[in-house]
Amino acid sequence: MSIVYDSDQHRGLIWQAWLAEHAPDLPFYLWPETGDPQQVNYLVTWSVPDNLSERFPNLKVIFSVGAGADQFDYSRLPPGVRVVRMIEPGIAQSMTAYITFSVLALHREIPMYLRQQQKREWKKGRILPTETCRVGIMGLGTLGEAAALQLLSLGFRCSGWSRTPKSVSGVTCWSGDEELQPFLAESDILVCLLPLTSRTRGILNRDVFQQLPAGAGLIHAGRGQQLNHGDLLTALDSGQLSQAIVDVTDPEPLPEDHPFWAHPSLWLTPHIASETQPETSVRVLLENIRCHQRGAPIAGLVEPERGY
Amino acid sequence: MSIVYDSDQHRGLIWQAWLAEHAPDLPFYLWPETGDPQQVNYLVTWSVPDNLSERFPNLKVIFSVGAGADQFDYSRLPPGVRVVRMIEPGIAQSMTAYITFSVLALHREIPMYLRQQQKREWKKGRILPTETCRVGIMGLGTLGEAAALQLLSLGFRCSGWSRTPKSVSGVTCWSGDEELQPFLAESDILVCLLPLTSRTRGILNRDVFQQLPAGAGLIHAGRGQQLNHGDLLTALDSGQLSQAIVDVTDPEPLPEDHPFWAHPSLWLTPHIASETQPETSVRVLLENIRCHQRGAPIAGLVEPERGY
Repeated sequence: MSIVYDSDQHRGLIWQAWLAEHAPDLPFYLWPETGDPQQVNYLVTWSVPDNLSERFPNLKVIFSVGAGADQFDYSRLPPGVRVVRMIEPGIAQSMTAYITFSVLALHREIPMYLRQQQKREWKKGRILPTETCRVGIMGLGTLGEAAALQLLSLGFRCSGWSRTPKSVSGVTCWSGDEELQPFLAESDILVCLLPLTSRTRGILNRDVFQQLPAGAGLIHAGRGQQLNHGDLLTALDSGQLSQAIVDVTDPEPLPEDHPFWAHPSLWLTPHIASETQPETSVRVLLENIRCHQRGAPIAGLVEPERGY
Repeated sequence: MSIVYDSDQHRGLIWQAWLAEHAPDLPFYLWPETGDPQQVNYLVTWSVPDNLSERFPNLKVIFSVGAGADQFDYSRLPPGVRVVRMIEPGIAQSMTAYITFSVLALHREIPMYLRQQQKREWKKGRILPTETCRVGIMGLGTLGEAAALQLLSLGFRCSGWSRTPKSVSGVTCWSGDEELQPFLAESDILVCLLPLTSRTRGILNRDVFQQLPAGAGLIHAGRGQQLNHGDLLTALDSGQLSQAIVDVTDPEPLPEDHPFWAHPSLWLTPHIASETQPETSVRVLLENIRCHQRGAPIAGLVEPERGY
């Protein structure tokens, strides 16, 4: 019974040291080392190698190193192999920090002030209380809920939209296709934290932007393929959206001649909103492996037909 | 017994309507209207007019419209006239939002990512947990404490430094000249929220910057005269400071040829970190007037020799 890890080396070394101390019964190999391939039950990776079943005939679980698991082709996985995505407090903390930063930047019009700085212009706008600003979060999973709670503590009004009905204290919760319209109509700042599925691909498009209040802001930290780049540019140029902060694109890295780079109303960050934190995630990995060993439920188990 | 208000018109009209409803016994005049000058006991203003005692011979209290009261020349005020600065939840909320935004921007290296965007460069840095970042707040009054509590909820480690010893749960508190050095040595991000007094004028200077960890960040939302502009530029150029976010300068507005405007490691906002919020501050004003009328303590009463 062993683990093979094929991802970021820095994190792998931290995990290796921690597991050697806390789970000496579980050999942990950093790819390309694998030990005896017959012994490998657990693979930690972002992408699945070819001929997986020949390589590791006794593989039981693939752990994604990230919060998403949309990168796997489920139809090509060996039957019986489960996929688990990473739900760990470090991802939620860094995403909460990024979303909080972005919402405050938009609410306080910091991009406008930095444009003024470039023009050597000292001109104050009015400060509106956070209670006047309605933040709408698409995706109310672990990340969306954590971000909403932090924003509530700053005084923002928060609502959320998800595929299935959710309930989060203090947050107005909407769900399903039929409630998307009223959710959007009350979102001065729209935050996308949705998982990538067949239903969410391309969801950030002209129809959605037009249903937002005029001059709304957009924060996109979901997945690149959810955003229609051309529709975003049109909405920014018309003023329907006042400003966007975009962390994920399709493709990544963004090509050098892409119009996002130089758009005056778009802040671009290179997919750094959140990442799996080595110290917190290894505890979750071990807990999940122990659950699997004794047949208990695993946190983050992906339902392939749902996509997350 | 009446109030004269000489400040921002927008706020004045909101106050006038609110007071007409909640304190009909207290006539409220928007300057240049004053009603009978003999009746004026309370003046709400940012700056004091000349010949104050002739103009309003029965003046008892001057209410500053802002959190600071450093703009008054106390030696020239009529004897017996007290000064009260504005301590109200709206100022604390907007300052907390600005400081939270700024700390997150520095911790997550957003200025660096926006410089990368200008160069069309897609390069990820590592995300460090907020627990690894030590924020040091100079000034632990109402504003400093509110900002610290919000930062703690995001996971940052917070310390504070003040003239006299303070105690804030979860915050390492330092005080006095002799504890400035150890406070600075552990501040990866230094936040200035000090009032302007003879002791704090010019306090943000080379000596202070050199005692910070190399590559520290600076957030200045105190008063312009606390910052030595030349020393800040030197510290940024040498790398001793990695980035500054500056909201207050001396003078304001900043002259058009000032080097701050175009410095690549300096974000400049035009004194918009915080301002008195009309809806919340008028309640505090009325409560203070009622306290004064019945001889009870007034919140925000300035001690002229201390300066705040």
